[in-house]
Amino acid sequence: MKKYNVGIIGYGWVATAHIDAINKSDTAQVTAIFSSRELDEGKLSSEWGSSIHTFTDLDQMLEDESLDIVSVCSYPNQHKEHAIKIARAGKHLILEKPLALSWEDCKEIETAINEAGVKTCVCFECRFSNQFKVTKSIIDQGLIGELHYGEIDYYHGIGPWYGQYRWNIKKETGGSSLLSAGCHALDALLLCMDDDVVEVTSYETKSRNAIFKPYEYNATSVTILKFRNGAIGKCASSIDCLQPYYFHTHLCGSEGSLLDNKFHSMKLNTNKDNWSELAIKMLDSGDVSDHPYQDQFETFFNSISENIDMPLTSLSLAMKTFEVVFAADKSATEGKFITL
Amino acid sequence: MKKYNVGIIGYGWVATAHIDAINKSDTAQVTAIFSSRELDEGKLSSEWGSSIHTFTDLDQMLEDESLDIVSVCSYPNQHKEHAIKIARAGKHLILEKPLALSWEDCKEIETAINEAGVKTCVCFECRFSNQFKVTKSIIDQGLIGELHYGEIDYYHGIGPWYGQYRWNIKKETGGSSLLSAGCHALDALLLCMDDDVVEVTSYETKSRNAIFKPYEYNATSVTILKFRNGAIGKCASSIDCLQPYYFHTHLCGSEGSLLDNKFHSMKLNTNKDNWSELAIKMLDSGDVSDHPYQDQFETFFNSISENIDMPLTSLSLAMKTFEVVFAADKSATEGKFITL
Amino acid sequence: MKKYNVGIIGYGWVATAHIDAINKSDTAQVTAIFSSRELDEGKLSSEWGSSIHTFTDLDQMLEDESLDIVSVCSYPNQHKEHAIKIARAGKHLILEKPLALSWEDCKEIETAINEAGVKTCVCFECRFSNQFKVTKSIIDQGLIGELHYGEIDYYHGIGPWYGQYRWNIKKETGGSSLLSAGCHALDALLLCMDDDVVEVTSYETKSRNAIFKPYEYNATSVTILKFRNGAIGKCASSIDCLQPYYFHTHLCGSEGSLLDNKFHSMKLNTNKDNWSELAIKMLDSGDVSDHPYQDQFETFFNSISENIDMPLTSLSLAMKTFEVVFAADKSATEGKFITL
Amino acid sequence: MKKYNVGIIGYGWVATAHIDAINKSDTAQVTAIFSSRELDEGKLSSEWGSSIHTFTDLDQMLEDESLDIVSVCSYPNQHKEHAIKIARAGKHLILEKPLALSWEDCKEIETAINEAGVKTCVCFECRFSNQFKVTKSIIDQGLIGELHYGEIDYYHGIGPWYGQYRWNIKKETGGSSLLSAGCHALDALLLCMDDDVVEVTSYETKSRNAIFKPYEYNATSVTILKFRNGAIGKCASSIDCLQPYYFHTHLCGSEGSLLDNKFHSMKLNTNKDNWSELAIKMLDSGDVSDHPYQDQFETFFNSISENIDMPLTSLSLAMKTFEVVFAADKSATEGKFITL
Amino acid sequence: MKKYNVGIIGYGWVATAHIDAINKSDTAQVTAIFSSRELDEGKLSSEWGSSIHTFTDLDQMLEDESLDIVSVCSYPNQHKEHAIKIARAGKHLILEKPLALSWEDCKEIETAINEAGVKTCVCFECRFSNQFKVTKSIIDQGLIGELHYGEIDYYHGIGPWYGQYRWNIKKETGGSSLLSAGCHALDALLLCMDDDVVEVTSYETKSRNAIFKPYEYNATSVTILKFRNGAIGKCASSIDCLQPYYFHTHLCGSEGSLLDNKFHSMKLNTNKDNWSELAIKMLDSGDVSDHPYQDQFETFFNSISENIDMPLTSLSLAMKTFEVVFAADKSATEGKFITL
Amino acid sequence: MKKYNVGIIGYGWVATAHIDAINKSDTAQVTAIFSSRELDEGKLSSEWGSSIHTFTDLDQMLEDESLDIVSVCSYPNQHKEHAIKIARAGKHLILEKPLALSWEDCKEIETAINEAGVKTCVCFECRFSNQFKVTKSIIDQGLIGELHYGEIDYYHGIGPWYGQYRWNIKKETGGSSLLSAGCHALDALLLCMDDDVVEVTSYETKSRNAIFKPYEYNATSVTILKFRNGAIGKCASSIDCLQPYYFHTHLCGSEGSLLDNKFHSMKLNTNKDNWSELAIKMLDSGDVSDHPYQDQFETFFNSISENIDMPLTSLSLAMKTFEVVFAADKSATEGKFITL
Repeated sequence: MKKYNVGIIGYGWVATAHIDAINKSDTAQVTAIFSSRELDEGKLSSEWGSSIHTFTDLDQMLEDESLDIVSVCSYPNQHKEHAIKIARAGKHLILEKPLALSWEDCKEIETAINEAGVKTCVCFECRFSNQFKVTKSIIDQGLIGELHYGEIDYYHGIGPWYGQYRWNIKKETGGSSLLSAGCHALDALLLCMDDDVVEVTSYETKSRNAIFKPYEYNATSVTILKFRNGAIGKCASSIDCLQPYYFHTHLCGSEGSLLDNKFHSMKLNTNKDNWSELAIKMLDSGDVSDHPYQDQFETFFNSISENIDMPLTSLSLAMKTFEVVFAADKSATEGKFITL
Repeated sequence: MKKYNVGIIGYGWVATAHIDAINKSDTAQVTAIFSSRELDEGKLSSEWGSSIHTFTDLDQMLEDESLDIVSVCSYPNQHKEHAIKIARAGKHLILEKPLALSWEDCKEIETAINEAGVKTCVCFECRFSNQFKVTKSIIDQGLIGELHYGEIDYYHGIGPWYGQYRWNIKKETGGSSLLSAGCHALDALLLCMDDDVVEVTSYETKSRNAIFKPYEYNATSVTILKFRNGAIGKCASSIDCLQPYYFHTHLCGSEGSLLDNKFHSMKLNTNKDNWSELAIKMLDSGDVSDHPYQDQFETFFNSISENIDMPLTSLSLAMKTFEVVFAADKSATEGKFITL
Repeated sequence: MKKYNVGIIGYGWVATAHIDAINKSDTAQVTAIFSSRELDEGKLSSEWGSSIHTFTDLDQMLEDESLDIVSVCSYPNQHKEHAIKIARAGKHLILEKPLALSWEDCKEIETAINEAGVKTCVCFECRFSNQFKVTKSIIDQGLIGELHYGEIDYYHGIGPWYGQYRWNIKKETGGSSLLSAGCHALDALLLCMDDDVVEVTSYETKSRNAIFKPYEYNATSVTILKFRNGAIGKCASSIDCLQPYYFHTHLCGSEGSLLDNKFHSMKLNTNKDNWSELAIKMLDSGDVSDHPYQDQFETFFNSISENIDMPLTSLSLAMKTFEVVFAADKSATEGKFITL
Repeated sequence: MKKYNVGIIGYGWVATAHIDAINKSDTAQVTAIFSSRELDEGKLSSEWGSSIHTFTDLDQMLEDESLDIVSVCSYPNQHKEHAIKIARAGKHLILEKPLALSWEDCKEIETAINEAGVKTCVCFECRFSNQFKVTKSIIDQGLIGELHYGEIDYYHGIGPWYGQYRWNIKKETGGSSLLSAGCHALDALLLCMDDDVVEVTSYETKSRNAIFKPYEYNATSVTILKFRNGAIGKCASSIDCLQPYYFHTHLCGSEGSLLDNKFHSMKLNTNKDNWSELAIKMLDSGDVSDHPYQDQFETFFNSISENIDMPLTSLSLAMKTFEVVFAADKSATEGKFITL
Repeated sequence: MKKYNVGIIGYGWVATAHIDAINKSDTAQVTAIFSSRELDEGKLSSEWGSSIHTFTDLDQMLEDESLDIVSVCSYPNQHKEHAIKIARAGKHLILEKPLALSWEDCKEIETAINEAGVKTCVCFECRFSNQFKVTKSIIDQGLIGELHYGEIDYYHGIGPWYGQYRWNIKKETGGSSLLSAGCHALDALLLCMDDDVVEVTSYETKSRNAIFKPYEYNATSVTILKFRNGAIGKCASSIDCLQPYYFHTHLCGSEGSLLDNKFHSMKLNTNKDNWSELAIKMLDSGDVSDHPYQDQFETFFNSISENIDMPLTSLSLAMKTFEVVFAADKSATEGKFITL
Repeated sequence: MKKYNVGIIGYGWVATAHIDAINKSDTAQVTAIFSSRELDEGKLSSEWGSSIHTFTDLDQMLEDESLDIVSVCSYPNQHKEHAIKIARAGKHLILEKPLALSWEDCKEIETAINEAGVKTCVCFECRFSNQFKVTKSIIDQGLIGELHYGEIDYYHGIGPWYGQYRWNIKKETGGSSLLSAGCHALDALLLCMDDDVVEVTSYETKSRNAIFKPYEYNATSVTILKFRNGAIGKCASSIDCLQPYYFHTHLCGSEGSLLDNKFHSMKLNTNKDNWSELAIKMLDSGDVSDHPYQDQFETFFNSISENIDMPLTSLSLAMKTFEVVFAADKSATEGKFITL
């Protein structure tokens, strides 16, 4: 079977994660990398195990007819330009989060992609993590009933000990607490609550620790969502906390609750005074046997083959999440409710 | 609402457990006790909180028209005589396990009860325990699929440190390892496998420790069951082991397995390398917040009110379990397969 | 030393908790109980170990000059009337939460008490629990630095299995999710964040389970608080969830975080990848060796002796909490931000 | 000291495990590999660190006089032919399990080996695992007394996610649940019970999951053993279950019991209500610091040097295990007891 | 069978522990109590379930011929006088620790008892605790070989929260850290090391916390023992620490080590990188199912019946421990080694 | 920035640990190795990633002007000669423990270094471990108050399974239990107690296991220290025990205690009946994410740059520890107290 050829834009940490996952799949391989820096083709090819051409001119790379898919791993403020170029070149797209740094840019991307008729996969790979596969199965099997309240939060201090800190601290490239990282939690919350958001309220604040002083935006926010069916959701995002990484999930339903890897279900008659505990590869545990990127990309490659929309993380689904993200940031900045 | 009046036959440890559970219910109360010993009515009434008459003549007690139900807590070798008398007196029956010490006696009891048309509850109260409510729910929700292999075992050393040891060691009153105690495990296995047994094989052995020398029968047995649908079950029963009490359950199905309070379910996408763990009040944990006797008796009183058959532990269901118990003991003694 | 004599208004579950704690102290004793029902003085005296007079006429009890203190354990909708009467009778007051069911009533109570010049203790006894003593010490020792974000939540399903369910479901007597129970969490949040609230937003929802249908108000709410110093707080309160009782605390500061009984502190150089774990008698653990009521009452009796204001749970401190509670409920009902 | 030169027949997963263990020992090295496929000598030599010649003609390899030992890692249905050839060539043998796929073939192998007078090591390497070293020590130190009942079981789903699934599903190459994998558990049971088997009964069944449909035999069996001294043993083997790998051990003796890595011993006065827990590298834990293969092979090389029989896993000891395995499979197929 | 009648001297906390344990035995009962305070015979008899006479004149009690045994539960500085009187009255003795507050007094007691020929039991009841039964069994089964180094320590802050604090702080009644409480640890160390002490060195210190200021002696000491066979022992005793009660045991032998309830044994081949863990009712755990007092007293009553010396805690064995205790205290005070 | 060039003396296990840590730092690199054996420069350079020259003549290496620092990783009995040479060559020194095998040698080293005016780092790298950073922070934050008693012990069997066993067993090269390894524990004790030692007593013993017979000195010792402020310390060191590696710490202070990774603090109001537990990378846990060597060396390189004394592990601080070590060994040998 023919393997899809994938080009990568940008060569930072996230790019290496993409290349690793793509080359581990049976159905695709990385054959091109665009970077503003000169890279050593031989070294890259031997490191990643596929024959890789490098480009410092993006247009040139996009002219390569053998390329089927291009993955956008550039700085967030370059996403729009890169995505539109790729779409117009007729390639399918893998788009790292955040999609872009404004809702208008997101919509321009969407328009270009719709016009091009190419397929898309937005990297909300948590939807492919073992944690959210199990969480969603618990909900879908009816074990905790219909949800009326849910919280999913992101607590992960992004300080100078991470490479991305350098550009993440800037408003222009990091955007906001949600755009920078918390959107994964908000996206997971939307996956679980599974209903349309009708109203958003958000508040922001920031740490007093000098480490986080360089952040040009408030690096902690908390957002409340009102769903059409009356349910309420809440998403805290803090990238200036100092604690173990915690991807906190708490879902309350009509037959029980789920709290991280624990649950209680009236349907199973479990003892209500204690939590039952699920064997899950938790996102915040660093369990390396979980491979959400690889699962997501293989699913994308299959959906291209079968000419169907990417399940779970297509552009149209991701747009719903980003619409809420931008509404939240607007609410926090302007100090008012946002109705969707 | 009128409360049912219950009489008790025998006043040993199990009788006190019955009285306690009955008087804690809202729907019945103990009003009579028959014992060959003279008992102090005043002391009993104040201890148990209901007005209790005592009898040393069973017939006299059974003539009491205010009595609705009689519970048989006498020695196992008296069960048949007592049960038949009660049935003929037109009272409903609570029957402690073992029903009787031979299959013929069981059938005589059944005949008398069917002729009298009274209702029955046989004390396989484990079916009302939190452990087997959860276990059955896991199966019924399809989380481990269709079962093809199951084990439920009873490991609990009954030595001189227990009062019942005195008569339990005798063939005439204890019967066998299964009749004495292991029938709870075998009954739970039948509950879970939920199919007809077509063949039984059993082997027996005994401990070399001097403590257990007085046992007149082999106090350890292991039984294999073949079910009509091709599934296989196994039940070990050891009352001469020296270890923590262990009510071992292991069920293998087409979508996962359950091991005691742990499970794996393909339906939930849980990590197959580790067990998920259910919050259960385990039978072998001595969790006093679990009340299988009380739940069972309240269900029985309700089924009398509603004039329906006792669910889960009616005589007709219990007969199926005892048929297998006697077949197993016969197989072990005679050294051959028994076909049912 | 003379012991204070305490009268109790109402004789439900909470009254028995008060009496038990008061009589276990060395400095006070319950000598009077007012109830609309006739109660047996002899039985009460022997049960509680102090000589107790009972009254069915409140005015008569308040005329008793030997009474120093009166505790208000009546239905919430009677609190205002009772509190004002007691104050006017010149007795010190113990006031169960909620103080009253409207902010106006709270202020009337405050006025009466200020006029009378009596001392008060409002039952926010969680401030005297081991959990919040430790939590506050962690903050006060600077181990997690200055807080910029905090969550304290109350998850505890109050269904028909609790006596209070009967009247708690009514708007008139239960009030709201916060007034019914969640105010303990909100009060603890104010204790920890230790700054003035300037803005409040709240949303409400309710469970789809039939058990909770009788609630006349939305039994789950989530509230966001903005503090004068820019910090943000969040308090979820759910009395219609089905799960183990969970009094969730998560505080993020400039030197670390505290999550329930866990913490990380840069000041201690602990491993940031794992939580350190504090030995705490948790509120939601049912640890019976913790006695917040008794500690609170002994502190109150001492503050009367020393003629100082009750620390931590005086009326004036509690008023700050209830002002936020009523603002939150108003925000949820009217769908707008409330500025304080 | 001269190192023994070892040749390997077959180059699948198990062969690589043999080579790794042999080359890590101080007393032997792999110098030859026979495979029907052409292999790259240089690559093999550099990968394994010894100079390796490859052969596609087995007779040619066996003519190599420098070869001292040959290890049989071919498909099970080739074992007999290969073993006999090696014996006749005068080489010592390492034999992977199953020895062969019929009792007659096993006996032909034994005859050839006895005639050749060479030494043998059959890969029941679990006897050299830390788990069974500890288990045997507990028994040998008398801590659990004389055993009267024992269970050792093998639960490990072998589905398409394992390479061997391809040929393991076939009756011709996989054989039966016991021959395929469960024989390790049965062998461990014989090691622990340490007595002659006089009677065997076995039952078979299979999973309803489509994954396991391709199995040409019933992939789950349960076998009961009666020992000469009256003790009873039981061995379940399931390679079509879906759960964490579980090598279950439960041994009941006159002074206590052992359950997996837990035990109770009257000899040590430990608390009978709780299990004591042994630090063991469990077979089913994937503890990579345990090296049963290497220990077994080093013991084998030493026994050749000392011209003594291989302890624990010689052919004559392994024959006893396989005699029981074939008896069990016959019992299951023919539906009758087998007397040995 | 006749029950022994026991008299008690003193009626403080330890006396109630003795009475409870004695009356729970089948072989003795408390029939007399001497106290300087007047006590209510009726109340005592009903509380303890045996008919008890009270005395304020000790000589009068000792004249009672029905008394077989007398237990000395008076203040430590009264032990000598009381013990000698009892011995001369021809009664057997139970002697609470410390035996006396000087070595000379101990020897006077011993002389009087030897002259009287009565039997004795000194309350080193830890020798009858489950913890030291298991510890001694581990040693006696050879599982950790011959000991060459051992530590047993006592860490338990005795502050105003304990009744005994009042008199324990005084040099005259408390004596020293070892005499007050630590002698239990030192006695257990001698039990385990099982050899003669030839040299003792000890150092003392005290807490800087104001709570412990009233102690008239240094409430923390550490003692090193040299045994005849060359082994070394160490015993720390701290009654002015602030931490969970910790009865620390660490024994190093030629085949392994034991650390509290954990051990490693080369004899069992356990994994040396991890501790095995014994199910023990630990002294410092407050496990109420352990009854060292009762076991000790029943053993004493049996040894009187059988006219043999009390095992484990006879006076002559206890004298060896106290000789070391006094040598340690002398070493600490005088700043020199003490040779025994 | 210029990187410091480091030379290494000796090429055993500890040398490789130094090279690895030095080359991982940003501020230095290994450029020279002296060894009596010929080493392959190319292989070393490629293995360690820096360009390395090798020498078999030490003087020649020391003549290399590009060398800034030399690390002494030779056998302990060569340390003095090597250290003095390096100092005289004007290079800064890293000195592995033990500094030397006699106090006189230590002082000669100190004199030479003082004369040369070079900087020193003695490898008491445990002071840079996460465990002792946290321990010291707990003390420095006042959480356990002023210490009056402390124990830090080293239990780690050094048998034939370790390479160093070969020379460690000799008196001439191993020295004593403390010199060989236990000095790390004693040094940590001095760090924590933070006061001058005024008196030392020590006892020695040895294992009866044949494995440890070759030791020419007593491989277990226990030492008591008296500090100027009256506090007492104790350090056991056993390299002939058979158990998991245990670096035992127990510190008792006026506000609480610390036991290994557990603590209780009155300052935090934690529950005194249970230990709080700190997230620490324990020395005895083999946590590879802790890098004490690297932290120590980077601190050393920075202190050279800033021309300040090495914090925590300078020669002058280490001399204090070795003075106590030699006093302890003298006390044990001569059987008397040593006053400092």
